[in-house]
Amino acid sequence: MSLEEVSVNKVFDGSLTKYKFKVRSSLFRCRQDPHLHKQSSALGGLDAKFNLFIPANAASGKVPILFYLAGLECTEDTGAQKGAFIGPAAKEGIALLFPDTSPRGAGIEGEDDDWQFGTGAGFYLNATNPKWSKHYNMYTHVTVEIPQAIEAAGLPIDFTRQSIFGHSMGGHGALTLYLSSLLNGAKQFRSVSAFSPIANPSKCPWGETAFKGYLAGGVAEGQDLYDATELVKKLPKTPIHVLIDYGTGDKFYKNGQLLPENFLKAARDQGYDEVQVRVRDQDGYDHGYYFISTFGADHIHFHANFLKA
Amino acid sequence: MSLEEVSVNKVFDGSLTKYKFKVRSSLFRCRQDPHLHKQSSALGGLDAKFNLFIPANAASGKVPILFYLAGLECTEDTGAQKGAFIGPAAKEGIALLFPDTSPRGAGIEGEDDDWQFGTGAGFYLNATNPKWSKHYNMYTHVTVEIPQAIEAAGLPIDFTRQSIFGHSMGGHGALTLYLSSLLNGAKQFRSVSAFSPIANPSKCPWGETAFKGYLAGGVAEGQDLYDATELVKKLPKTPIHVLIDYGTGDKFYKNGQLLPENFLKAARDQGYDEVQVRVRDQDGYDHGYYFISTFGADHIHFHANFLKA
Repeated sequence: MSLEEVSVNKVFDGSLTKYKFKVRSSLFRCRQDPHLHKQSSALGGLDAKFNLFIPANAASGKVPILFYLAGLECTEDTGAQKGAFIGPAAKEGIALLFPDTSPRGAGIEGEDDDWQFGTGAGFYLNATNPKWSKHYNMYTHVTVEIPQAIEAAGLPIDFTRQSIFGHSMGGHGALTLYLSSLLNGAKQFRSVSAFSPIANPSKCPWGETAFKGYLAGGVAEGQDLYDATELVKKLPKTPIHVLIDYGTGDKFYKNGQLLPENFLKAARDQGYDEVQVRVRDQDGYDHGYYFISTFGADHIHFHANFLKA
Repeated sequence: MSLEEVSVNKVFDGSLTKYKFKVRSSLFRCRQDPHLHKQSSALGGLDAKFNLFIPANAASGKVPILFYLAGLECTEDTGAQKGAFIGPAAKEGIALLFPDTSPRGAGIEGEDDDWQFGTGAGFYLNATNPKWSKHYNMYTHVTVEIPQAIEAAGLPIDFTRQSIFGHSMGGHGALTLYLSSLLNGAKQFRSVSAFSPIANPSKCPWGETAFKGYLAGGVAEGQDLYDATELVKKLPKTPIHVLIDYGTGDKFYKNGQLLPENFLKAARDQGYDEVQVRVRDQDGYDHGYYFISTFGADHIHFHANFLKA
């Protein structure tokens, strides 16, 4: 496994590098039992791309890293280009990782037929339906393979200081990766935030489609393993750091695809107060990057509190 | 003439609205003689789009406006989405206007064959070659038609306070629109800035292609009317406010498409000092929006000095 530089752009005195890499065999963590591992490649040997912003201060020591998971139809470029995250991250001295949103070119029948499923819609889970399970394992790709590739390349990232955020499907990804790593003991991330997350996917059309398609156990398996609202109910009072913003003018919110109120209720029922779980309804904002860019600096500063503690 | 709202997005507490409009007949200023006008439509009756950001403070009074002209292959969305301009403009209370880069769908033979000419490459001039002159009049479209449409719609913009900036072909556009409006007495803009502008188009391949194609008088006509380096030589010591940033890692700079050094020399020879004409070489930056976003806030603050004076 080695990283190939596709492009490098200087930005805010640091660098944004697009990398391409292929994994033939990697440590594949099995979520149901973190002690069980299999040797495999999360994307079935396909090339993967990601963007990595490294701030200028990395020249004098390793820097913390914040993962950004994008939403349906997006790529590793979307957040980097439209989120307005890089300026605030450069000021805070934090690296930003932008993974892709799915495998590309797996050649599975129907993969490109629906913008809500398949290519561009990996949902940050590990597929168990045999049709998808060779390639669609974005959970392991993001949490294990990309960090391993970055470490192996000797890049100046301090992986003892990781946080994660995301948008829509990527907000779902950020919340579930954060919560499961608390539940399985890995404690990979210090804090999580999300814009307009799919916060209760087993109760909405986007999530149901994904779970029925990717998972042998369907919606029940998804509800158990990849639903933020269900996962937060299982937490044994561990301290958590969660920030969520959504817009009251968001048509997907209005259509019941996001359900942040379900997550909020579950968190409050579990005893988490406003300091640990903050959910903000932003008046009149919609689902897009104009909304995200408005609160991007806020989210970077939220994570900086924990990454630089 | 009336504006049709295509979309509205709340952003940084203000609004970004995409408008579509069509002009059947408008005041067509003839640059060679500002007293001579003809009745026409700058884009030959085609639909045009632009994005307009209006900050929240417009609710309590008209706000100044800053035009952003984008480069080759771009649209009215590029600067709005990737420039990171809106946050700083919202803080300063300044509106941002993002026109398109050319007419769309004129149906002229060869229009879509070359990314450097035709669609997406209007070069902010008024064509005099009969093949192009019915539709390719972005100079008048930007300086006259769009402001007229905004005023007619009663939007809260104070057109006594206008400035302009742009990138690459749009940097050329910003500089030439600014300088010609000083030369023809209109004094439409208070200040100008540019990222990586095509600063001496009659001496570079991009400009030569455009001038030979669009102008009956070819490169000589372009050099006379639409070349920032030539225009600055004609200024009668009028006070000017010019900021230019380019990256030393920009391949188009290295290939001689931009020639900011020619503009700088002409300005210094004309007696303009560093306060009036500032040209900065930014170490290692390239031609893209990662570069632009890095210095976007700087440019907004530069213009705010004059727009809010």
